[in-house]
Amino acid sequence: MKFIGFAMLLATSLCFAQDSADFKPATSNVLDAQYPQVDSSSRVQIRFKAPDATKVKLNFWSGPKADMEKQADGFWTFTTPAMAPGLHYYTINVDGAEVSDPASTAYFGGSKWASAVEVPEAGADYYLPKDVPHGQVRQVWYHSSVTGAWRDAFVYLPPDYDNSKARYPVLYLQHGGGEDETGWVRQGKANFILDNLIAGGNTKPMIIVMANGYATRAGYVVPDLTGKPFGSPEFMKVMQERMGAFEDDMVQVLIPFIDKTFRTISDRDHRAMAGLSMGGMQTFQVTFDHLDMFSYIGGFSGAANVFAMGNNKFDTKTAFNGAMADPAAFAKRVHLLWIGVGTKEPERMKTGLEALHTALDEGKIQHVFYESPGTDHEWQTWRRDLKDFAPRLFQSSGQQSAAAHGM
Amino acid sequence: MKFIGFAMLLATSLCFAQDSADFKPATSNVLDAQYPQVDSSSRVQIRFKAPDATKVKLNFWSGPKADMEKQADGFWTFTTPAMAPGLHYYTINVDGAEVSDPASTAYFGGSKWASAVEVPEAGADYYLPKDVPHGQVRQVWYHSSVTGAWRDAFVYLPPDYDNSKARYPVLYLQHGGGEDETGWVRQGKANFILDNLIAGGNTKPMIIVMANGYATRAGYVVPDLTGKPFGSPEFMKVMQERMGAFEDDMVQVLIPFIDKTFRTISDRDHRAMAGLSMGGMQTFQVTFDHLDMFSYIGGFSGAANVFAMGNNKFDTKTAFNGAMADPAAFAKRVHLLWIGVGTKEPERMKTGLEALHTALDEGKIQHVFYESPGTDHEWQTWRRDLKDFAPRLFQSSGQQSAAAHGM
Repeated sequence: MKFIGFAMLLATSLCFAQDSADFKPATSNVLDAQYPQVDSSSRVQIRFKAPDATKVKLNFWSGPKADMEKQADGFWTFTTPAMAPGLHYYTINVDGAEVSDPASTAYFGGSKWASAVEVPEAGADYYLPKDVPHGQVRQVWYHSSVTGAWRDAFVYLPPDYDNSKARYPVLYLQHGGGEDETGWVRQGKANFILDNLIAGGNTKPMIIVMANGYATRAGYVVPDLTGKPFGSPEFMKVMQERMGAFEDDMVQVLIPFIDKTFRTISDRDHRAMAGLSMGGMQTFQVTFDHLDMFSYIGGFSGAANVFAMGNNKFDTKTAFNGAMADPAAFAKRVHLLWIGVGTKEPERMKTGLEALHTALDEGKIQHVFYESPGTDHEWQTWRRDLKDFAPRLFQSSGQQSAAAHGM
Repeated sequence: MKFIGFAMLLATSLCFAQDSADFKPATSNVLDAQYPQVDSSSRVQIRFKAPDATKVKLNFWSGPKADMEKQADGFWTFTTPAMAPGLHYYTINVDGAEVSDPASTAYFGGSKWASAVEVPEAGADYYLPKDVPHGQVRQVWYHSSVTGAWRDAFVYLPPDYDNSKARYPVLYLQHGGGEDETGWVRQGKANFILDNLIAGGNTKPMIIVMANGYATRAGYVVPDLTGKPFGSPEFMKVMQERMGAFEDDMVQVLIPFIDKTFRTISDRDHRAMAGLSMGGMQTFQVTFDHLDMFSYIGGFSGAANVFAMGNNKFDTKTAFNGAMADPAAFAKRVHLLWIGVGTKEPERMKTGLEALHTALDEGKIQHVFYESPGTDHEWQTWRRDLKDFAPRLFQSSGQQSAAAHGM
């Protein structure tokens, strides 16, 4: 953890705290929890009970990192400067133990059930439940011949699904590294975003499948990764195994299961895939390995292996076994290639995605490059991504085929 | 917290730890977490990183409470004696901060996202995913005119629901105090229990609705309950408001929404309600206030207000506005009155439920009294309750009417 800037943050927060008058419990709190609180200037107050602790530090993963101040009642407090809108993961370090705040709803991120605080975005209600027809989110279980185990997935069905005989196109939508299949609904509000987009009439009703991005082939035993960080040879070997097993499970088991279980339109013109961060990498791997199955591709703060590109400039003539070598043919085959990044994301992330965007431009590869203003490698970026991405799906050949299928 | 017996536990654990050889990561761990571990003798090892802490205590809510031992690597460890089977909630106290173990899946209990460790029950697989048809669990949203807000519920649909035109009976199944609508699937495995029971042919396919047991009427502002424990006048006033609002929401909004949304059989002969602990109290309140709507009633470690009964013996002649005054008429009207308790539950809980059972016997009120051997006020008791309760539902008049409805 970096505590750079802590002194400045603390000074700022003390000044701000003087004139605050409208702090209210965050919508991300558990029932009856009075803290965290957020005010109309998007400042956040955290309060944490640790009467016998020597040192308590607040750790917003993409935000303030600071020592909390001990109060006489055994609680430790901190007030942040104004924060970007959206859901911000955080943990609290109590005498060396990195733990969650029991006052917060727990969200699976960073490979644990972490805390997060929801900072509202003024004027933005596209991800809130509104008075429109609501789709259902179904948890389904399937036995995977690839992993040799039962797996689950979450499936969003559009509002009219149960009252219609129509068949629907499908978007496979993946979470990020350290997250799981619950992320897109619980953190991302994907269901409310789609409910609102569909009610607005600008987005085709579609099925969204959210699978668990971690898989290992039957018989594979994951080694103990304690002390083996991201990037270490041991970690990367496991990651590679998992990427391959995930791809096989998705293509060989999950997609057939979904097509059998739901009223899908099961051709490539009606199948999209997108994902955030690690899920974006998985999306590029799976879709370009199987262009016979997908025609819409989205990378949200992650696309191809942008980290591995550092020294090898992305070359549209040779990338993905030449899939992009002929730009016109590619544009005809892939109806949408979409890449997004938040303008406040870490430099390495932004640079990688901008380089990909530039390379695609230079190679005359038709694509969309979306920048989310003022947001970091966090869920507000990905909510906006989905809001921009979903209305572009299944509009071209999709529309025609959908009509042919009686939609 | 009570630390009685800690010295004895510690001594026991040190002895046990010597001969352990088969500790394995618990199935309740998050991905890749090596601890907690459970061995074939049902002992549990907890390991928690807190390098700078002075004191770290382990708090199984219905189990060992003990000081953990600091190791040279900054981790604190503890090994329990053999524990009862099932899912055991726990938290860890780090220098006065009561927090969750980041290595554990978080389960909503005790009004926070707590840790828990799953201890397998030898020979029991009725709550595990097996090679049988699986039902889906759907999350649905509805706007409540009672609460003035959007609420969600989880709905189990039996395996054949989507491939049939049949209508199904409905069980409303409630979580306990401090838990929420996610509990019966995530902790209770209600969906797998029903999948297995239905596959065995002994249980009618049914819909199960799991709602959030907390509600407040539109406009009501919950006061700050910090420092107002269960039983305090302030807490009880809020609880009463919530019980009433929950009842109104369920009867006026949720049930009509479910009957409109799913293919239910919407008469009283095909509607059951059960709940655990607080959910059992809610079940007795809702069903006896609305016997025109329900004919199957289950109280799992909670039924009527057993706490309030202490000085007022339960009198079947006057209870529930005389609903039981005529035992024969009651037996005809209520097809099942079911009460369950674990034999290791706290004395107050056991005594209350046994007194109710005795009073029902003395009043000649037909009912089932089930005792779960060796389990406490925990989820293994309630899993067993559901396993005993569900096959008794919709078998009598239910069966005939179901046939009439073309099932």
